[in-house]
This record gives sequence, structure tokens and C-alpha cells, in this order.
Amino acid sequence: MGFFSSPIKTMDDLYLHTLQDIYYAENQITKALPKMIEKAQDPALKQAFLRHLGETQGQVKRLEEVFGVLGKSVKGVTCPAIDGIIKEAEELISDCDDPEVRDAAMLGAAQAVEHYEITRYGTLIAWSQQLGKNKVVSLLEKNLAEEKATDVSLTKLAESKINRKAAA
Amino acid sequence: MGFFSSPIKTMDDLYLHTLQDIYYAENQITKALPKMIEKAQDPALKQAFLRHLGETQGQVKRLEEVFGVLGKSVKGVTCPAIDGIIKEAEELISDCDDPEVRDAAMLGAAQAVEHYEITRYGTLIAWSQQLGKNKVVSLLEKNLAEEKATDVSLTKLAESKINRKAAA
Repeated sequence: MGFFSSPIKTMDDLYLHTLQDIYYAENQITKALPKMIEKAQDPALKQAFLRHLGETQGQVKRLEEVFGVLGKSVKGVTCPAIDGIIKEAEELISDCDDPEVRDAAMLGAAQAVEHYEITRYGTLIAWSQQLGKNKVVSLLEKNLAEEKATDVSLTKLAESKINRKAAA
Repeated sequence: MGFFSSPIKTMDDLYLHTLQDIYYAENQITKALPKMIEKAQDPALKQAFLRHLGETQGQVKRLEEVFGVLGKSVKGVTCPAIDGIIKEAEELISDCDDPEVRDAAMLGAAQAVEHYEITRYGTLIAWSQQLGKNKVVSLLEKNLAEEKATDVSLTKLAESKINRKAAA
């Protein structure tokens, strides 16, 4: 994977750049999640992160399929947004002394990651439709649906358990 | 505004840190939006960014009211997430040669900003309720409702006009 971007002249260039951006982001997330799994104290939160790691690995494969359908080589470009979101999560994890408070912080940080992915997939799907790249829409929609479902299940876990334990 | 964070020992500390994080983020957004307003080519997009700048300034004031209700001094902490999201937007803007493609890129970047704010306000509202800080919930809910409405109106603008112009 090379991380240098090319000049953006057309909508096709912008589309490819954004695809490379989310591909880089998903790869960074597969590297960040194992640390969160290790640090999670609550078994349900640990399990949720573990499940999402498997899902993210599947999403990376699906993006590779998208590159293939488009006839483009698989490549990532550095995405300062996800780098910043992950940096903030890591700083927060190391700043939290209490394991229950850290769980609440990690859950919130994971939702920030989900929302970044939700917005990028939403944009990519709209651009795919506009550019007539209809063959990749269902692949991107599968990734988007998984991110949205993860966000909803994290909200449920926060409200039913993690926030209460952290505030106790 | 000082941008150094304190150690996080309790849920109250984490709550205050996250409030300071979104306060910093909103302030950074008020600095980033004028450049996007200047660069926007489409009048409706320019108008949408201009309206959101006014809204963001109101959100900053509302957050200052939240600090006041909680008896805390108004303060921001550096938020690497929003810094990364804005850095990515600025790089993209300067990489795009074509004004219509740049408009599509800026619109997508603005939605990434909205989604970061949506997730942070969602988390802060849940934590406010858990910690019994009920007096600030309606203030935070107003900011959240505005961010969600902005995101929806940007999607409509993208699909009805901006993406089509960029792909032409």
C-alpha cells in the first residue's frame, strides 16, 4: 500500500481518492482495535470490539473487491481524519486511570470512528450512483449497514451498562 | 482558552474533558468555515456554509452556557480528531483544481465534520443523563438537532445538484 495521493482533477479522481482514504482508514482501525480489546474491562464491551474487528477485516476485503470491480489497484492514501480520531482515542485511553471510566471513554471513541465511516460510505455511495458505478453500490452499502448497526449496538451497550458502571 | 487536559480519574472528569473537546472543535470549525465559504463556487453551497457558520457561533455560545450551568470555567482541550478532519478537508480543497469537483469534496468534508459533532453530542447527552446533569441536556440537544439538520440538508444539496455538477 502506498500512501501518497495523486492530483484531483475530475470527479473520478476525487472518488478514487476517497475510496483510498476509507481503505487506509479501515486498515488503521484493524490495527487500533486489538489495543482496545486488550484494554476493555467489561466482557460485553470486549466482545463488541472483538466482533467489530472481524467485521472490519471483512470490510477491508469488500473494499478490495470494489477496487477490483473498478479495475483499479488496491491502494490507501493517508487519511489525517482517521489518524486524528485514533490518536484522540489512544490519548484518552492512556489518560484514564479507572477501568470503568476507560470503558466509557473507549466506547465513545469507537462511536466517533463509526461515524467517520458512516459519513464516508454515505458520500461514496452517492458518488457511485452519480458516476454510474452501480456494480459497487451493494458492496459499499453492506459496509455502511454494518457500521450503522455497530453504532446502534454500542449506544445500547453504553446506555444499558457501561455508562452506569463508569458513573458508579 | 487553554488547551491542556487534566488527568481523568472519574466519570465527571471524562465528561468535562469531552465538553472541552467539543468546545475546542466548535471553535476550530468557526475558523475553518470562512475558508470554505470563500472557496465554494456554487451559490447554494456557499449559502449553506455561511448559514452553518452563524449556527456554529450560536453553538459555541450554548456550550459556554453549559459550562456556566455546571459551574465550570469555559475552556477547550486540543481535539486531535477535529484537527485531523479539518486538516484532511484543507488538503483536499488545495488538491482539487476544478471548482465543481472541489465543491463536492468540500460538501463531503463538511459532512465528516457534522458526523464528528453528532457522535460527540450524542455521547455527552447520554453521559449528562447518567450523571444527573439534566439542566444541560436541552442545550446539548439543541446543538445536536442543528448538526443533524445540517447533515440532512447537505445530503439533499449533494444529491440534487452538487454531485451532478461535479460529474458533468
